[in-house]
Amino acid sequence: MVWLVSAGPGDPELLTLKAARLLAQADVVLFDDLASGPVLDHAGPQAQLIAVGKRAGRPSAKQDAVNALILSHARAGQQVVRLKSGDSGIFGRLEEEIQALTRAGIPFQIVPGVTSASAAAAAMGMPLTRRLTARRVQFVTGADVTGGLPGDINWAALADPAVTTVVFMGQRSFPALARGLIAHGLPPDTPALLAEAVGHPGQRMLPGTVAGLAAMLERDGPASVPGLILYGPLALPGGNGSGTPATP
Amino acid sequence: MVWLVSAGPGDPELLTLKAARLLAQADVVLFDDLASGPVLDHAGPQAQLIAVGKRAGRPSAKQDAVNALILSHARAGQQVVRLKSGDSGIFGRLEEEIQALTRAGIPFQIVPGVTSASAAAAAMGMPLTRRLTARRVQFVTGADVTGGLPGDINWAALADPAVTTVVFMGQRSFPALARGLIAHGLPPDTPALLAEAVGHPGQRMLPGTVAGLAAMLERDGPASVPGLILYGPLALPGGNGSGTPATP
Repeated sequence: MVWLVSAGPGDPELLTLKAARLLAQADVVLFDDLASGPVLDHAGPQAQLIAVGKRAGRPSAKQDAVNALILSHARAGQQVVRLKSGDSGIFGRLEEEIQALTRAGIPFQIVPGVTSASAAAAAMGMPLTRRLTARRVQFVTGADVTGGLPGDINWAALADPAVTTVVFMGQRSFPALARGLIAHGLPPDTPALLAEAVGHPGQRMLPGTVAGLAAMLERDGPASVPGLILYGPLALPGGNGSGTPATP
Repeated sequence: MVWLVSAGPGDPELLTLKAARLLAQADVVLFDDLASGPVLDHAGPQAQLIAVGKRAGRPSAKQDAVNALILSHARAGQQVVRLKSGDSGIFGRLEEEIQALTRAGIPFQIVPGVTSASAAAAAMGMPLTRRLTARRVQFVTGADVTGGLPGDINWAALADPAVTTVVFMGQRSFPALARGLIAHGLPPDTPALLAEAVGHPGQRMLPGTVAGLAAMLERDGPASVPGLILYGPLALPGGNGSGTPATP
């Protein structure tokens, strides 16, 4: 049995009880860069910990190598935990591994987790949806496989001012995205938030506007840490000090 | 300090470690109907457990009463946990309580959790996003405050065939929603899934199509248990038995 386990946003306390139990029982833990750190302390002393981070290599070759590794450990009869950051079902490239397991006839279970989108909003002290003004929430990627803005953007969906949008992996392409959004009618002063290193020690929240954040990212370039960008009718705290943002 | 804690989808193992710790330390736990059950076993023997379910009463009067209850316990110097099902920031009516706390000058922290949308997909053995065919995922409500289909639906966003959409609280209005989606170009045979009682003992997964599910719900009416409806290019398992859906 292979357990496809979500590690949550990084804060080891935002791991689920199920993920913690499976890590404690695992013979092998295959983990991504972003699912490393204190979360791995939950693994038992018997566990072999194997980093399979994809940042360095070519995406497709690397994915094949990860799949092969999962299969070989599972075939050896080991309890395999494949640990992915955030919720593995949201931009986690889960499907490639599911397909490999299905083709090999190896049973698996997916363990959902806290998506970093939820953690970013919580850390800012605000909800993702609002009863009257943000009755839809959407998660999108800011980059396609080439690293650029995806070519098939549904602008009517993304420029909707009555929606909370969370852009994953979008720091580099956000200036281009923002130009398109504004051209399609989104007000430039729509509230926005850059949430860097959500759930990690370097967590940083930069509230602003769509146009302001785009100008800042264009000027300074993206930070070296992963970041989410939220925009829409965000209920950003008023700064009166009573809403205490959660610390990682 | 008031802790606005997400209880996850219902399965007590999908609680976060942080939520479990806060429940164990709480003096008072104010919980919704959907956040009751075995999750509450994590509360310590000292904890006063108070059900504040909103199903029975008028929404607005009830919300005021819940707010008043949170404030009175917090002012008495108690450790207050306000427990909400799923991720409290997604259709959890979190904002009303944040505003009441902010007005009263009482500090709070939001603890994010596993949304039932992630749990439904995981239980079905599939991801919410797909690298090439579902690069956006969106969560919407199927009903506004009147219980009917919201009047301000962005059809271009919701009828997009390249998106995974999760409809919360939408069993009753799905036949009307589906008619609108199909009229706006969504193919009637788009894969769909009705996920009932996600994370609870009566969990049931009914895969089908948008048109098929709408016809079933129109004929039979909604079940008495909460349900999510997912539609889009879903990676529904092929039924070869190798993908083992998670049990609650």
